[in-house]
Amino acid sequence: MSHPHPELGSPPPLPQGGLRIIALGGLGEIGRNMAVFEYDGRLLIVDCGVLFPDPEQPGVDLILPDFDYIRDRLDDVEAIVLTHAHEDHIGAVPYLLRERRDIPLVGSRLTLAFIEAKLTEHRIQPVKHQVVEGERHTFGPFDLEFFAVNHSIPDAVAVAIRTPAGIVLHTGDFRMDQLPSDGRLTDLGGFARLGSEGVDLLMSDSTNAEVPGFVTSEREIGPVIDEVIRTSSKRVIVASFASHVHRVQQVMDAAARHGRKVALIGRSMVRNMGVARDLGYLHVPPDLIVDGREIEGWPPEDVVLICTGSQGEPMAALSRMANRDHPIRVAEGDTVLLASSLVPGNETAVNKVINGLTRWGARVVHKGNAKVHVSGHAAAGELLYVLNLVRPSNFMPVHGEWRHLRAHAKLAALTGVPDDNIVIAEDGVVVDLVDGQAKITGAVQAGYVYVDGSSVGEITDVSLKDRRILGDEGFVSVVVVVDSTTGKVTAGPEIHARGSGIDPTAFEDIIPQIEKALQDRAADGVVDMQQIRQVVRRTVGRWVSDTYRRRPMIIPVVVEV
Amino acid sequence: MSHPHPELGSPPPLPQGGLRIIALGGLGEIGRNMAVFEYDGRLLIVDCGVLFPDPEQPGVDLILPDFDYIRDRLDDVEAIVLTHAHEDHIGAVPYLLRERRDIPLVGSRLTLAFIEAKLTEHRIQPVKHQVVEGERHTFGPFDLEFFAVNHSIPDAVAVAIRTPAGIVLHTGDFRMDQLPSDGRLTDLGGFARLGSEGVDLLMSDSTNAEVPGFVTSEREIGPVIDEVIRTSSKRVIVASFASHVHRVQQVMDAAARHGRKVALIGRSMVRNMGVARDLGYLHVPPDLIVDGREIEGWPPEDVVLICTGSQGEPMAALSRMANRDHPIRVAEGDTVLLASSLVPGNETAVNKVINGLTRWGARVVHKGNAKVHVSGHAAAGELLYVLNLVRPSNFMPVHGEWRHLRAHAKLAALTGVPDDNIVIAEDGVVVDLVDGQAKITGAVQAGYVYVDGSSVGEITDVSLKDRRILGDEGFVSVVVVVDSTTGKVTAGPEIHARGSGIDPTAFEDIIPQIEKALQDRAADGVVDMQQIRQVVRRTVGRWVSDTYRRRPMIIPVVVEV
Repeated sequence: MSHPHPELGSPPPLPQGGLRIIALGGLGEIGRNMAVFEYDGRLLIVDCGVLFPDPEQPGVDLILPDFDYIRDRLDDVEAIVLTHAHEDHIGAVPYLLRERRDIPLVGSRLTLAFIEAKLTEHRIQPVKHQVVEGERHTFGPFDLEFFAVNHSIPDAVAVAIRTPAGIVLHTGDFRMDQLPSDGRLTDLGGFARLGSEGVDLLMSDSTNAEVPGFVTSEREIGPVIDEVIRTSSKRVIVASFASHVHRVQQVMDAAARHGRKVALIGRSMVRNMGVARDLGYLHVPPDLIVDGREIEGWPPEDVVLICTGSQGEPMAALSRMANRDHPIRVAEGDTVLLASSLVPGNETAVNKVINGLTRWGARVVHKGNAKVHVSGHAAAGELLYVLNLVRPSNFMPVHGEWRHLRAHAKLAALTGVPDDNIVIAEDGVVVDLVDGQAKITGAVQAGYVYVDGSSVGEITDVSLKDRRILGDEGFVSVVVVVDSTTGKVTAGPEIHARGSGIDPTAFEDIIPQIEKALQDRAADGVVDMQQIRQVVRRTVGRWVSDTYRRRPMIIPVVVEV
Repeated sequence: MSHPHPELGSPPPLPQGGLRIIALGGLGEIGRNMAVFEYDGRLLIVDCGVLFPDPEQPGVDLILPDFDYIRDRLDDVEAIVLTHAHEDHIGAVPYLLRERRDIPLVGSRLTLAFIEAKLTEHRIQPVKHQVVEGERHTFGPFDLEFFAVNHSIPDAVAVAIRTPAGIVLHTGDFRMDQLPSDGRLTDLGGFARLGSEGVDLLMSDSTNAEVPGFVTSEREIGPVIDEVIRTSSKRVIVASFASHVHRVQQVMDAAARHGRKVALIGRSMVRNMGVARDLGYLHVPPDLIVDGREIEGWPPEDVVLICTGSQGEPMAALSRMANRDHPIRVAEGDTVLLASSLVPGNETAVNKVINGLTRWGARVVHKGNAKVHVSGHAAAGELLYVLNLVRPSNFMPVHGEWRHLRAHAKLAALTGVPDDNIVIAEDGVVVDLVDGQAKITGAVQAGYVYVDGSSVGEITDVSLKDRRILGDEGFVSVVVVVDSTTGKVTAGPEIHARGSGIDPTAFEDIIPQIEKALQDRAADGVVDMQQIRQVVRRTVGRWVSDTYRRRPMIIPVVVEV
């Protein structure tokens, strides 16, 4: 198995008849999935998602793939295939379309409907190209065939990409639920047929490659939700993802069975379920829905609320209920059901929400104490089926952190893919499929692009380092006004500090020391503002470190008059 | 079941013959365990630990119990009982002893040895009072009896506190391992005898009250560790807690069986295992240990390293190995074993370490993929045994967040403790045991006391709020020099920003606006520095918000000349 090395340089030109594959996101992380395929100078993109920041990226709203590699070649892009409508697959589309509006978006009906609703908020009217599993569509040199896959959102697809370089099968995200509630199975028969034809490269979802065995059927969640609602004597609040149509369907069905009304809470929940209902993916029993603003008027035992916030997002309704900062007052006897996964990184936030709700007397049912969620991704035992049916000549694990990619590579090796034909790539690594052999040939830039407020890409890693220091230690700024001709201090030093935890009165101790240091320096008669700043920084920094054993950011400001 | 309400006021005076119990930490959080018992004007403390900060407390090193409630009464303290030597039970002792050095520390031999080694670093020589399970010792009005309990550190004890108000049994932390590697069982027979005598109040460890069933025996970990070492062809690195003597023993035994040398890495690991060895709690096979600095010289297949850092602590050896920032270079074929729990809140950090090590080719074995750790706390099925054997008249769950306390209270109710006799208290809540009935009677201050660098209690919640803003958004400071008599701006505005993500050249746009706003203000002829600051803050804040949709901290600095 080959894996990338930091010393990878620019790739050589792609040989005639070869296919180049570069992931600009999704390899080495769960999120911002984006793969770029190049054949004969033309490009095809599969997915274009966002990554959510972790505590090392404070204040960042979203992380995008770095479009730099394709920025000068946007006119070469034939299409963007969207395998399904989760944010980590579609979230960056509005940002890419800002750079070229008319790139065709290729996807299934619900996927395109969800992305269109989202693009409306960005005031973008996309060019859409709707596809159905079983169909073939051609975009430039790329001949695409779509396959149904089952996932935690309806209407997901896998895509086979045929070029003269060979056949690539990209699974998208999938699971192998053999009794799916909507009857739409992952098309293993299609994968098998493609396998007989000869798949040159399989790119397959690695999320659960470390998890042994099989994922429980979504069908088994329904009775648990039903039981929770049936045994609740007061209000039931269900938190789920705003795109999980099947889960919302199960909750609505259970609510209807037990004579409860349902209110949807949260903008994205209301928007997506409206779309899903209009298109027939969500079947809402008659007279079930009550407006969220009227729900407080109903007796607690007659309602179910479905809201977002299952990941402990601080501004979502659920967190605000836990903090008694929401019109809905959770009370003794209420039941809160977290019918969702716990996305890694959100454990602390979700734990706070559970404790907050418990404190007010709610029973909290979650995946830790009941079978109220199943994963949307196939586990190791199921990934083996795909590998064995497709029998690819080359294998490249996608959609995962290093631990997941390595585990999936190991599964591929166990099914007989030769080690030399297994490619573990990171974001930006260039994989060329030439003469039936996939190989790493170089790397391109694929850094994080941060969205913060309305700006994209302006926040740099330097800003984030500054934020981490400021966040941990605060700052001390020292203002000195200096006569630019004599170098004499005419006002200050004045000290301002925030987040440093140093009592303002303590600064009186250091001001004489700064004055003395500046006098000592002035004695040599040279007026050098840079030097003055350095003297101030050093004097204050040393004092803080010696007195408090802390390292706030020291900001010397010298104003010349 | 009673639970506290925010409106709790100061408690009434404690009636004659009553026992007052106030937890200054450990209720509503896992950490900083500390309970204060008062009888007839005298105080007894059980445990005095620290809590580790979460992302909402940036830059904080440790969180202590608030000693304020006992600060004026330190001379009334008869003793501090330390149930065992984990940081969340002993970590705050040095800080309390700074306020009164000669409070007797009561504990078992290893507990006192560990705390003494720690206090030496703080240059404190404590007054020690060593006890053994089965013994009774009297401190003022408190008659104490000690019971062996099994936990993830040797020599832990539970304590029964007898006063004329009744018998209180405080379990400390415990588990029910029925085949412990050191043969030291939790003394259920003792608990039963005490139960027959009549326990008026049981205070019991709630950590795993939500976990159904039973905890696996520590004994089952040994063969798994052995197998991991046996099947490793290169270096083995084991990360564990620096106090987990039994686990380190298992690793040493397995290393010796497979002819490997062992190096201990990390100051606290070396210190504690030295103490444990000297006292006979750790049995080190002859010629096993190699100095950590020499380990790189040995062939990889001949060594086992035991280090700290199992929680992903960024400065620990393991994280630095994952980042290639450590002399030990993890390579293809190495095995890293995380033989420890994953403390809630550390998931993201540990995941980064696992991915980093995997990236360099290491096999990482952890509790997610092998049985390499068992909890140190009894699960629900085992807590029922204690409740049924002790048959307390009153029950107060301790050592847990709200979710754990509520779950434990429910277990107590199932075993027949009347609802009115189950007290769920938070930190600072006053529980009085009077005439055989435990009741909440009020609350005292029990806030977080933050240790940051060398200062204790100087960092306030205001500083932390500032840090959170600075960490998420950075700051923009605007310096203006103003003539104090005319109010005229004589220099500036000068703008400095860090972490704001705003390009410095962009500030040129706003400087004329600030100048104009200041001129408009000056037109009214009033020189008011406060007003100048406000004009600057408003002008800059509005510009940043409109242009970038962000909210950095705006710091206007007006220097008068």
